[in-house]
Formats: sequence, C-alpha cells, structure tokens
Amino acid sequence: MPPPISGAASARLQWANLQWGGRFAEGPAAIMQAINASIGFDYRLWREDIAGSLAHAAMLAKQGIISEADEAAIRQGLSEIGAAIAEQKFTFDPALEDIHTNIEAWLVGHIGEAGRRLHTGRSRNDQVATDFRLWVRAAVDALDGQLRDLMRALAGRAAEHAATIMPGFTHLQTAQPVTFGHHLLAYVEMLARDRGRLADCRVRLNECPLGAAALAGTTFPIDRAMTARTLGFDRPTANSLDSVSDRDFAIEFLAALSILAMHLSRFAEEIVIWTSAPYRFVRLSDAFTTGSSIMPQKRNPDAAELARAKTGRIFGALTGLLTVMKGLPLAYAKDMQEDKEAVFDAADAAELVLAAMAGMVRDMQPDPARMRAAAGADYATATDLADYLVRELGLPFRTAHHATGRIVSAAEARGLELADLPLAAMQEIEPRITEKVFEVLTVEASVAARSAQGGTAPENVAREAARWLEALA
Amino acid sequence: MPPPISGAASARLQWANLQWGGRFAEGPAAIMQAINASIGFDYRLWREDIAGSLAHAAMLAKQGIISEADEAAIRQGLSEIGAAIAEQKFTFDPALEDIHTNIEAWLVGHIGEAGRRLHTGRSRNDQVATDFRLWVRAAVDALDGQLRDLMRALAGRAAEHAATIMPGFTHLQTAQPVTFGHHLLAYVEMLARDRGRLADCRVRLNECPLGAAALAGTTFPIDRAMTARTLGFDRPTANSLDSVSDRDFAIEFLAALSILAMHLSRFAEEIVIWTSAPYRFVRLSDAFTTGSSIMPQKRNPDAAELARAKTGRIFGALTGLLTVMKGLPLAYAKDMQEDKEAVFDAADAAELVLAAMAGMVRDMQPDPARMRAAAGADYATATDLADYLVRELGLPFRTAHHATGRIVSAAEARGLELADLPLAAMQEIEPRITEKVFEVLTVEASVAARSAQGGTAPENVAREAARWLEALA
Amino acid sequence: MPPPISGAASARLQWANLQWGGRFAEGPAAIMQAINASIGFDYRLWREDIAGSLAHAAMLAKQGIISEADEAAIRQGLSEIGAAIAEQKFTFDPALEDIHTNIEAWLVGHIGEAGRRLHTGRSRNDQVATDFRLWVRAAVDALDGQLRDLMRALAGRAAEHAATIMPGFTHLQTAQPVTFGHHLLAYVEMLARDRGRLADCRVRLNECPLGAAALAGTTFPIDRAMTARTLGFDRPTANSLDSVSDRDFAIEFLAALSILAMHLSRFAEEIVIWTSAPYRFVRLSDAFTTGSSIMPQKRNPDAAELARAKTGRIFGALTGLLTVMKGLPLAYAKDMQEDKEAVFDAADAAELVLAAMAGMVRDMQPDPARMRAAAGADYATATDLADYLVRELGLPFRTAHHATGRIVSAAEARGLELADLPLAAMQEIEPRITEKVFEVLTVEASVAARSAQGGTAPENVAREAARWLEALA
Amino acid sequence: MPPPISGAASARLQWANLQWGGRFAEGPAAIMQAINASIGFDYRLWREDIAGSLAHAAMLAKQGIISEADEAAIRQGLSEIGAAIAEQKFTFDPALEDIHTNIEAWLVGHIGEAGRRLHTGRSRNDQVATDFRLWVRAAVDALDGQLRDLMRALAGRAAEHAATIMPGFTHLQTAQPVTFGHHLLAYVEMLARDRGRLADCRVRLNECPLGAAALAGTTFPIDRAMTARTLGFDRPTANSLDSVSDRDFAIEFLAALSILAMHLSRFAEEIVIWTSAPYRFVRLSDAFTTGSSIMPQKRNPDAAELARAKTGRIFGALTGLLTVMKGLPLAYAKDMQEDKEAVFDAADAAELVLAAMAGMVRDMQPDPARMRAAAGADYATATDLADYLVRELGLPFRTAHHATGRIVSAAEARGLELADLPLAAMQEIEPRITEKVFEVLTVEASVAARSAQGGTAPENVAREAARWLEALA
Repeated sequence: MPPPISGAASARLQWANLQWGGRFAEGPAAIMQAINASIGFDYRLWREDIAGSLAHAAMLAKQGIISEADEAAIRQGLSEIGAAIAEQKFTFDPALEDIHTNIEAWLVGHIGEAGRRLHTGRSRNDQVATDFRLWVRAAVDALDGQLRDLMRALAGRAAEHAATIMPGFTHLQTAQPVTFGHHLLAYVEMLARDRGRLADCRVRLNECPLGAAALAGTTFPIDRAMTARTLGFDRPTANSLDSVSDRDFAIEFLAALSILAMHLSRFAEEIVIWTSAPYRFVRLSDAFTTGSSIMPQKRNPDAAELARAKTGRIFGALTGLLTVMKGLPLAYAKDMQEDKEAVFDAADAAELVLAAMAGMVRDMQPDPARMRAAAGADYATATDLADYLVRELGLPFRTAHHATGRIVSAAEARGLELADLPLAAMQEIEPRITEKVFEVLTVEASVAARSAQGGTAPENVAREAARWLEALA
Repeated sequence: MPPPISGAASARLQWANLQWGGRFAEGPAAIMQAINASIGFDYRLWREDIAGSLAHAAMLAKQGIISEADEAAIRQGLSEIGAAIAEQKFTFDPALEDIHTNIEAWLVGHIGEAGRRLHTGRSRNDQVATDFRLWVRAAVDALDGQLRDLMRALAGRAAEHAATIMPGFTHLQTAQPVTFGHHLLAYVEMLARDRGRLADCRVRLNECPLGAAALAGTTFPIDRAMTARTLGFDRPTANSLDSVSDRDFAIEFLAALSILAMHLSRFAEEIVIWTSAPYRFVRLSDAFTTGSSIMPQKRNPDAAELARAKTGRIFGALTGLLTVMKGLPLAYAKDMQEDKEAVFDAADAAELVLAAMAGMVRDMQPDPARMRAAAGADYATATDLADYLVRELGLPFRTAHHATGRIVSAAEARGLELADLPLAAMQEIEPRITEKVFEVLTVEASVAARSAQGGTAPENVAREAARWLEALA
Repeated sequence: MPPPISGAASARLQWANLQWGGRFAEGPAAIMQAINASIGFDYRLWREDIAGSLAHAAMLAKQGIISEADEAAIRQGLSEIGAAIAEQKFTFDPALEDIHTNIEAWLVGHIGEAGRRLHTGRSRNDQVATDFRLWVRAAVDALDGQLRDLMRALAGRAAEHAATIMPGFTHLQTAQPVTFGHHLLAYVEMLARDRGRLADCRVRLNECPLGAAALAGTTFPIDRAMTARTLGFDRPTANSLDSVSDRDFAIEFLAALSILAMHLSRFAEEIVIWTSAPYRFVRLSDAFTTGSSIMPQKRNPDAAELARAKTGRIFGALTGLLTVMKGLPLAYAKDMQEDKEAVFDAADAAELVLAAMAGMVRDMQPDPARMRAAAGADYATATDLADYLVRELGLPFRTAHHATGRIVSAAEARGLELADLPLAAMQEIEPRITEKVFEVLTVEASVAARSAQGGTAPENVAREAARWLEALA
Repeated sequence: MPPPISGAASARLQWANLQWGGRFAEGPAAIMQAINASIGFDYRLWREDIAGSLAHAAMLAKQGIISEADEAAIRQGLSEIGAAIAEQKFTFDPALEDIHTNIEAWLVGHIGEAGRRLHTGRSRNDQVATDFRLWVRAAVDALDGQLRDLMRALAGRAAEHAATIMPGFTHLQTAQPVTFGHHLLAYVEMLARDRGRLADCRVRLNECPLGAAALAGTTFPIDRAMTARTLGFDRPTANSLDSVSDRDFAIEFLAALSILAMHLSRFAEEIVIWTSAPYRFVRLSDAFTTGSSIMPQKRNPDAAELARAKTGRIFGALTGLLTVMKGLPLAYAKDMQEDKEAVFDAADAAELVLAAMAGMVRDMQPDPARMRAAAGADYATATDLADYLVRELGLPFRTAHHATGRIVSAAEARGLELADLPLAAMQEIEPRITEKVFEVLTVEASVAARSAQGGTAPENVAREAARWLEALA
C-alpha cells in the first residue's frame, strides 16, 4: 500500500537521491518547496491536529464566536478526515506544505464556509505548538509504559537470580563478588530515574499554547481554559510570546531520552562483553542475534550493538535541537520547524531500543557456573579479609588494608587463591589471624555479609526485586 | 596570595604549556601523574569531603565501629583542615592525586591511628559520589537564587514597561505590536521552567551513596539512614552498584543548564540586535559594554555576546559527559573522573552569565519612542483589521484574511500605513467597512484588545508582572 | 508512484507511528527486523553496490577464480537489476535486510549458480565499506559542484557591488565602512576552504577496502589493485582490519559539512537581520520568502531561517556518528550500521541549503541608499581620522586614538557627524589639524584608502571578484 | 613558584568557587571583568604575541611607517618581556584583560612613545587571529611529533608480533584468526590519517591575517607579504572581513582531534577489555595501572580508561566551538573569545592521551599463549574450510557456506573443534572432502593463507611493519 503522499511528490521525495544533481533544476520554486514543506514528516501530527481543531471549534461555538451549525459541520468534517487518514485513504499534498494546511484545505473543500471559520482566534504558531506538545505527551506516555515493561523484565530476572554470584567489576577488573540480580537491579534504579525525568517533563509541558495566536494573543473572546481542559492540559500557558517560541518540552524530552539511551548503552555494552567468548556469562538465543551461514556457532549480538549505537542518534538529536534554538530572537522563527524530525527520530529509536532490551532481558540465559568461577578468582574476597582484620582484630582500616595486601601477595606468589592459602602463611603476616578467617573468604560469605541497606546480599536483592515487582505490577 | 597547590607542582601545572614538548620527558611516571591526578580541579570538593567524613565518622562512632575518642579526634582534625583550606593555608600535593587523599593523608599525619580508622566501611567510590552530589546540590541552590534574582529584575522592568509598545517580531519581521513588558515576561516564564528543571534534578539527586563502598556494600553494621540524614539527603540510595556508577545527576544538571543557557542566548541575541544602530531599541551603559579608545560612541555589547557564547561551552560540557558515560560497563570506571571539570566549568559559566544578564536587565534603557515608531510601521495592525472584518461584518476568517490582504496592498501602493488609508479606499474592497474600523488600527488599540489570558494587553502584563514580583518577593 | 519498498512493509514502515504501541506485538521477530533491517535507507547505495559487484566479478574472472561465462551472467543480471531500480520497478524486501542481500538474492533467483559465486573472496564487511565510500565520494563531488555555483553567484554579485558601501560591523555595532562586494567575498573565502576540506576528505577516502573480506583478508588470489582501479580508487587500503572498521571518511565528511553549515548559518543570519524592518539592507523576492495572506508586505525569510536551522541537524549528525564510534573494539561492529542515515541526512541538508543560498544570493536586491546612509552614521570614519593624525601629524597611534576620541565626543555633543564638525572644533583638540582632514572623513574616502592587500578598497574588491570569477569559470 | 597572575587577582580567580555566592557582590564592574577578561587563559599566547609584534614592527620600520629607532626600542622591549615571562617573572594584570594589552602596557610603560607606535596599522582583531593561528600551528606540529612517536611504538610492537596469533573479532565474537601485529598496524593506519588531517589543517590555516586590522584593512602602506613571510605563513589572507571573523582553523583542528580521540578511545577500550580477567591477552605494568592497597593483584587500567574518557571533552570542545560560531554575523564578535579555552583544553588532552598511549604500547606485555588458545577456539577457521570447498571442489561460494555450516554444526554437536573432527564426519556432509582439508584448518594456516595485499599473513605484517618503521625513522 502506498504511503500517504501523493504519487509524483512521493516519488520525488523518495527517489530524490537516487542520483545527485538535477534535483533542483526546476529552479527556485522546487528549492523553496523542498526546504519549506514539512508534510513529509509532520503528517505524524494528524491525530493531534484534529483533536486540537475539535477542541478549538467547540470553544468557539460555546463562546458564540462561530455558530453551533458551523461547529457541527467542522466536527463532522474533521471526523471524516480522521477516518480517512486512519484508513490510509487520505492523500497528502506537499504543495500544501504541512499537515495543518492539508487538513484545513480538505475541510474548506468539503464543508465550505464553515471550514473558513475554523481558524478564527488562532494561528499556525499556536496550533503547531499545541499539536507538538500533544504528540510529545503521547510519546512520553508510551515510553513510560515501555520503561515499566523493561523494569518488570529486569526485576523478574533479578528475583530469579537474587543469589546467582558473579564477579563485580570496577575498571572491568574483578573487584568483589556480587549477585547477578543485584547487577540487574542497578538498571532498574537507572530506569526509575528515567521515568522520573519523563514524568517531570510531562508535567512541565502540559500547558496549552492554544490562544496565543501568532504571538500576541487574540482579540476574540476565547476561553483558553476550556480548550486546555478539553485537550487534557493542566492549564493554558501564561505568556503568548513564550507560548509560540518555546520548545523546551522537546529539548527536555530529548535530554531525558539521551540519559535513558546512555543507560541502555551501558547494558548493551555489557551484553556484548558478556556474550564474547572469553566471558560467555550469558547466552542470547537466535531471536536477538544474527548468525552466519558459515559459522553457525556465531551469535552476533546485533540487537545489543544497535541498541548501543542508537545512543549516537539520540545524542545527535539533542545537540541538533539545542543548536537550532541557540540565539533565536523571539517570537516564532521558521528555524523551529526543525524540531519535529529530531524528536520523532529519537522517540522512534528509544521505542525500538526499549523493545529490544526488554526482549533481550527476557531472552538471555546466564551461565551461573562460569560467573561463579570468575567471581571466585583474582582474590575477589580480599576486602572481606581486610574487614575481618578490622572487625575481629581491631586493626585500623588502613593498617588492615596494608596487611591484606601482603597476604594477597603471599598467596599470589604461591599461585593460590586466598581461601586456599594455609593459615600459617597468613599468620606470618598477622599472627592473630585464626581459622575463623576462612569463614569470610568464600564468595558466598562475601555477598551474604554485604547486608547493609543497598548491599548485594541475596536477601537484600530478593527483597528489592520483590518490592519492584509489586510496585510495577 | 598563591593558589593552593604546592610550589613546584603549581608551576608545572600552570606553566606546562608555555612550550610544547618535553613535558613528559620524565617518562611514564610524569605521564601517569598528569593523566591521573585530579587535585587540580577536585580541590573544589573540600567542603563536601569534610562534611561527608564528619557524618561518616559520627555514624561509625554511634554504631560502635570506632570509638568516641577516635571520632572526636577525627572531628577535631577535619575541623582544622577546613579552617586551613578556608584561610588558604593548606597546601595540596598533586602526588596525593585527589582531594580525598590529600585530606586523609593530613589527618593520618596529624592525628595518627584514629585517622587510619576513618575509611572503615566506605570506599573512594562512594565517597566521591557523595561529595560530588553535595557539590551539585549546592550549585543548584546557588543558581536557583540567581535565577530568582534575574526573574525579579525582569518582572520589575516588565512592571515598569507594561504598556511600552514595541513591534512583536516573527521571523524578525514586524508582525503585531506587543509591549516591552510582555516580551520581558516571556523570559520570566522560561526561567521559571529552568528553576523547575533544577528543582527536579535536586530531588532526584538527593539520595546518599555513602555506604555503597567500592561497589557491593560493606560488611560493617553501618547506619546509612543516619549519614544520609546528617548530610541533608532524603534517603540513602537503593543499590550499591548503581550508587557508584551513576552520574545521572551531573548530566541532568548539565542538561538543565543547557536549556537555561539557550534561553539566555536568545535574550543576549536580542540585546545585541536591539543595541545595533538600525534598531537602537535599548541602550546599555558603560558598565556592560566596552568602548573603543577611538570611537567613544561605540558601545560593544561584550557582556551580551559572551553570555550568548557561553552557551557553547555548556552544550559542550553536556555532549562531553554524555560521551564519557556512553557504553561504560558497571560499576565504577576511571572514565567517570572526567565528570567534574565539565560540571564545574558549566556551573561557573551559568553563574557568570546569570549575573551578567541580571546586571544588563537592570542597566538597559529602552527607547520607547523608537520602539513605538517601529511598532506602528509595516502594517502591524493588519490582523486587527481582519479580526474586525470577522467580528463586525461576520466574514469567515479566511475570507477576512483575503480582504485584509487586498486592503494592505492598496495602502502599500499609496505609501500609506493602514490608519492613514482613507475609508473610501477600504470600502472599495469591502463596502461594509465603517469609520469604526479606525478604532482598531492603532497600535494602542491593538495591544489593548489582546486581553484574553496570556495576551499582550497592558492590563494583563501589569497583572502578571505584579503576580511574579509577589511570588518572587 | 509508490516508493521502492514492498507494499505491506512500506505501509508498516511509513505508518508505523500513526499510533503508539502495538508496533512490536508480533514479538522478538518484529523487533529484530525493525532494529536490524537497513534497506529502508541503504537502498540509496544501489548504484554503488552494483558498480562494486561488477568490478569484483570482472576481477574474479580475470584471476580465474570464476569463469568468464559466470562473469558474463553476473554482469547481465546486475545490469538488469540496475535498470529495474532506475525505473523504480524493483521491489525491495525488508526481510532481506539490506541492499546487498536484496540485489544478491535477485541475482541468485534469476541467474542461478553463477550468482552464488559472486561473493567469492569478499564479505559483507568490505562490500559495505566500499559502497559507502563510493557514495560519499559522489556526494563530495556533487557538493563541490554546488559550492562552485554558490561561489560564482557570490563573486558575481561582488563584482556588481564592488563599490557599494555598507557599514562594516563588529559586535553588530557600526565600525568602519566596507563595500557590499567585499562582504560577499568573505563568504567566497570561507566556501573555498570548505571545498578544500571536502577535497582533502576525498583524497583520504579514495582507497578501496574491497578484498579485506570479513576482517582478515582472503585466501583467494584476488587482484585488489584491479578492483580499486576499476572503481576509480587511487589504491587498495593497506590493512584489512582497518578497512572494515574505519568510518573516518564519513566523520570527516560530516565535520567538513558542519563547518560549511556554520558558514551558511552566518550568512543566513545576516539575511534575516538585513531583511528585518529596521535594517532593510536587502530585499528577497517571493521566490525565497513566504508571505501571509493577511500581511502581504510581510516577506518572511523562511529559506534563510531554514538554512540557518539545518546547521543543527548537521552538527547533530556529526555528534551522533562520533558517539557511535567512540570506544568500539575492532573490527566490524553492527553499531557501524548507524553511519549511513547520519551521512545521507546531512548530505541532503547540505545540498538543499547550498541550493537555497545560491538562489537567495542571485535573488536578493540590496538597497544601496539605505546601506550607505547607515555606513555614514555613527562616526564610522573615526579610524580614518586617527590614521590621519598619525600619518600627517606624526602622532603615535595610541595618542592619535586618544585625540580622536575627544573629537568624536565633541561632535557627539553637538549632534554632528565627523564630516560636519567645524574645523575649529577639531583644532581646539589638536591645533595642527588642517582642512585636509575632511578628505579622509567621507565613507568613500575611507573605503578607497583601505587598499593594502585584502582591504575593502573597491579596486581590490573588483580585482578579487574578477579573479574568482575567472577561477570558477 | 606562584603562577603568573598577580596575587590578589590570582587568589580571587583560583578560590572563587570555594564558596558560592558573594562572588559578584562588588557589582557590575566585578561581573564585567569576570566575563570579559581573558588573561586567565590567553597568557598562553605570549610567545606568539611577541613574535607577531616583532614581525609587525620590523615591517613598519621597513615601510617607513615608524622609525628605525622606534623599531629597535620595541624589539628590545619585547625581548625583555619575553625573557621575563619565560622566567616567570612577569606579572599579568587581569585589569588589563588580555595578553595583548598586558604586553603592550608594559612596553609603553618601559619604552614610552615608541611603544605607543607599535599598534599602527593593526588592530586587536587581526592581532589575536594571528597569534591564535600561530599557536594552533605549533600545536599541530607538536601533536604530529607525538603521532609519529606513537606510530613508531605501534609499528615496533607489530614487527615484534607479526606472527603472534590472536582471535580476530567482529561484534566482539571470535571470527577469524589474525596476528597481533596486524591488529596494531590497523591503528597505525588510523593515526596516519590523523596526521594527514592535521597536515591539511596546517596548510589551510597557514595564511597571515595581520593587516586586516579591525575588519576593513588599513590606510597605512603596510607590506603584508613581509609579515606573513617573517612569521612563517605561506601568504597573507585574502579578505580582511574573513580574516578577523574566521575560526575555521580552530574548528578543523578540533574536528581532527575528535577523530584522533575516537581512534584512541577504541584502542583504550581494547586495552581495558584485553586486561580484564576473562581475556588477559595483555598485561600492563605498574607504570600505567593503579593498584589498590588492598588488592595488590588488581591492576586498574586507569590510564587507558582516562584516554578513553578524554574523548568526551574533545568532542565537547568541538560541539562547543561549532555552537559558538553558529549564526554569528560578520565581522568580529566577542563570542569568538570563547575559542581559546576549547582549543587549549583539547590540545592538552590530546597531548596527554598520545603520551599515555605511546607509553602503554611500549609497556604492554601480550600473552601469546592465551591469545593463541582463544584464536583456536570457536571454529575460527570455518571460513578457511568454506574457501577450501570453493577452491578445491569448485562449489559456488554460497553453497560452500552452507556445507560449512553443516560441518561446524556436526563438530559442535560432538564438542570438537573443526581440526579435531574426523574426516568421515565431514564426508558425510560433502563426500569429496579429502585429508588435505586439515591443512587449512589450523590457525597458522589460516593467517598464512591471507596473503593478498592487506591481509593478515605474517609475511604481510612483517613487511608492512618494516615499511612503516622506515617511513617513520
């Protein structure tokens, strides 16, 4: 089924770059249409534009600015347009530049004079600001749902692996044992903050610009509170100049998505490392890897790599829109038309990456044996030994550290892990150490001991996972 | 008075780049110290580091992990260090890498064994995360104060100029008359959102990482709620891995500053344009301009230009830190040490720009006569004419638009503004127009008529300015 | 005519975001296809992919790796595909992921076994690197042509206005008179550097990765020099790992476009300012402005604003791709698939902006009278007076500056421009000044006197413009 | 020894942020100085400023614009200043704003009237543009030297390890065997391109702006070719407006550094991964790692992590300066003062990272046994098997791929590597396979067979390494 742009125009847009040159041979008119028309992307505002017009018309009628009959005709006409677009039967015309004109032109063409009254008391500037806020608000809500889903997936796996021991890394060097569940819950915390940022963005954007008109407000006795209410906004915006020149909501949205994308890039990086041969801590199924017809054992973590890479386009969208807005005098400038593609693209990317990550979280199979083996190597419980020296022998912490270092060196010299080092060897360095020390040197003891709030003890992890699962239910 | 870094080191740091080459002739040790040491910038965390250590020591004592006597010695020692730094008598040693080690080394050197017990149950990783959150929180609070001050300055000038008419621009083309006060209040709205973003950032960052230790929590029976409370945090963080690997608060802070900087760049741009000769809508005094010894009439708006330009470094800091964090595996990585300079630099820039903008707002003298003259030109009240045709004659809006266009063309052809066009000329185009039309064609009538909520009517502006001044009092 | 993607898939891609949610209800397979498939954008590489395959097949045949008959079949098949795509009769299948597989699958389907031999001695990794370099090279060449055209347009207008005087601004404050031609030639210099950067980028990218295979080279006795030569490359690349993991050429291209976009944003900003009512130094026709049905005199410089704004997306593309590549281990990673959309989008934007700017340069009508009037105000020849004092009276420059300042103040106090200040008034400050001083105080004398190389003297400007026109002929 | 800024001012600058607030209590003057003064960073231009003034004075004297005696006095004075600064005996005064005024003020103070003649025929705008170009040129040269050094280090290790086999990765999954030397040479190629970009940047920037004066050129009969020649520039710039408003050279330099930093971030990432416990392909000594007093076996690759992270600040500097320049009208604007810190900071970071990477390359000890073991696992020679089927049995490539896949599956099912799979098992899938197949299944055979140009065959690698070492000698 063809896309919703009229034939010739579509072909020109889509195929424009099959070959360089000649694209603008038609002269200024072709250039101007190419640089000016936004219907190629702002058609995505169709639902919002119709909703905004319905609310505006209802208000105009209630205020007596247009007649009830005109309002009914407008309502009927917009409803038909909506149905046509939803069924992909509406043909957009690039010569009409944008979604707003496409819809209004259809309306005037079909319902006549009433259609010419719709734009009373508003302007393209407040109309587009309203539509775009509605779109971003819907995107926030949709992404919030996906975030909850991903958090649920993570918390579910965390509950499952509350006690699965893996090496905790700093500097990608083995540091101390942690549990796989604890690691997954770290991402739940990050995503919870991401949800918070999106929610705050939503609160801030949820004011209705409609009625600001071109820039100065209108001379008609409109009821801005009514349109705001109808469209689900908390209130009308307070200043007409600000209303038409503000794109904070779009930038704040992109900033929130950038931090979210950064979080997901970290997890994606871990998946890439964890699935590489020397690690192989987890395994992804065919659903999220691509193989090679020649190396069937090869499971390239393409989805994870692309999730990591999408960070670039989201950062780029943020940089781009900040650049656009830098130094623009009030009120509306055409520069601001560059806002939508950045936001659409970043929202699409975030949607895709969240879906892919949720899929991978549910799909991945950890290898507890390999994880535990790695956790038990490299003197990962040295800190537990130092803590023992402080707790049991009363050594000052820095002194205990020093003694531990000497003991680890002794173990290393013999090619042994700490738990295998004879007591006597330890006592050569610190004579007061007793057999009891071996109780703290296992990875199981190490994680169990970290039971202060926020620590990796399995009981903590199980409790936290349960708490999240309940909160997200 | 010399800066707080020891002589030779300071000279090396400061003069390092007087000439290229030879800087690393000393070999790996010099390179490693140069790339690794952070004391050159993280000394700015000294207050926070001391506060964090005081809270931690008090908690350790209360929990019986260290003795009361040790805690008292630590408290006394830290207090002496704080005083020494505040009086600039403390010498930082780059060989000790960072602020944390500089302070702890002094402590151990001066109070002995008790000092070696301070680090019990914590790690550099949670310590630095705590210090840095405290610093960002203080920066948020300071910037919030400056934002309020700038908003007050703007609202004050808006109250003064609630009825001062200027041309409202779209595309930098004269569109409709607005008032200077209305224009200034648009920035108050922007800054109010900036405050909101900073406040939200503050809420989200106000959790205490102390106790997460290196990455997995600690085996000591610490009371994280107590340290959190002492340091003014709302609660401890929930996950130890997240606690030491999270820099969301820094990035969110930079994102909020980026939007703020963008707002100020717009106002700065307007000041530059408004003070240029063909506009000359406002005049800045010598306090915020630089002259030229040769052209004493020249008042270069350097402060405004620099305010506009600082946007670059703030965007750059955001891009930089996002880049740093992209794709980092958990938990702590040394990469994260790159967080502080970006934040310090952006915060300093924001502080400076806010001060400069507040100064300029208070300093600038608008020229109401020039503004009004510009507002009255270029058929700025054409929309009022169209609205008249709708309201008085019942024309549909699009039809009224068309008729207005023809009338403006007629006026343009005669070289007249609308208010000067004879009624007969208008009636040639729309016979039902009456003398009453002239009531809507003055700029005063135009702004007065935009009295719906958010519009530029002087009564609206005066009310809004008063509301803001009260809210910000 | 529908776009070249098969019906259902097209509809899904195009309409995907008509509504949020449900997009991935089909589960992992839908997610994986959505995140993995690149045919939605890499179809633009079709010419390059066919050219690369033709060169590869010819080489395989020459080396005896495939038979002449197979090569002939492949050549015939690829030629048919090329024709089908050019005529928009080829249907791309998203299930086949990318342009390479779409073409190869068609080939195997139509010519059978010979088609299965085409991929001998190459891999997707070197194939895509080759195709993309070819595309970027073609884009460089096309943009170079546009740059030359824009430079010609500027130089032509500069020749026309070599002596048209306008105010030269620093800080957007009137500084010294310059000529409009001189101002336009400043952009010619910028664009010449842009061409240089693109040319350097082209030299660096013009090495052929084909033969690097997956990452390690191939075991077949291929002749890399032959394929390189056939495809117009200067030589094969030197290291197979680098060949498949390098995207420098794309980033360098984006960096060059970013600087270019920045240049054009400056000119666009000037057009916006120059066309605003208080300046009105130039006028754009309807071809590059949008009007308003209500304010026919309003000529919104939309094309200039959009040219300014496109800078954002080009900077964003650069930021994005740098982010993607940061920290990627060798050799190929799927992350690198994110390279193309950024480059396509930035190249399209640059193409569009260059076309629009060339159009505007040819279209714009300067108003020499307004420019000259502005140039003659604000004591713009004060520097000429100072130079006179140095040259004629032998004052040290700083002393002359000081005296000039006092004279300008005297003129300002009387509300006079320098040329109108009585000689006696000047002599009160510097008694040795004679009537001759008035020879240097006109704007005509000022620009004429700046005849040292690079200065704004009309003779310089005319000479430079002629030189450029000849060089660009 | 204290830094070169006068006491009180230094203390204020350095300690400014010990506490928030109160910084600008002194009012507008303090704000304006803080935002306007650049001496805190542009003191680094002192050598260039003196060199530029010497060249200018010599030219003025030769042209008879100043006397020989004045020129001699200026030369003597500048020489004294240079010596004082080099010996750190010169005190910079922030009240004098920048390096240029600091030097000129000293000169006038010490040599009197001659000093007041130095500025004849130039302006701050062309002076600063000249100084900054000279600085960037010197930085390019210094970094070029470091690049050569790093390339030499890499090529030396490559020569040493031309035949050391390691797994070649794509998607961080084992793909085919390569040699460690081949891998290191990939970075030599990248760095060679980086050198090329810097060299091109140097060519483009090497034009002298001196003589452009404020923006329009000068009325004095200066000889721009002479000053250009004296300062080592290829020629004077062609257009005075462009000369003072151009910062392309700084941005192009930052773009080149960004790509360089990206390259180094990839290598740094590999070092981090290679030194992590599951890999442990290489080992870094204490010189480039930090230990832990508690875990002496822990060698955190801090230098590599910081090298990776510095990418952020370099990208940020590029973003920042592009942002600054976006949309600035000609000619000079104060915004452009923001250029220097970004460039200084990025150049310092690049210098540091190059030194650290060269140190690590020389320091790192690969573990050939672990590398070879990893290379021999995971069916890394499957491609060799497929190539064998094509070459020896005449199978079409895609068919051979398919057969290989089945053979690998058979091997996997038995838990065997390919070289250990009985011939009979292979023949079940492809009966024509003979014993000869085992000749291609070893990692040694695999790398040796990739001997086409650019492939990983040890002979290739040895040759390439030798070629580079000679070229870089």
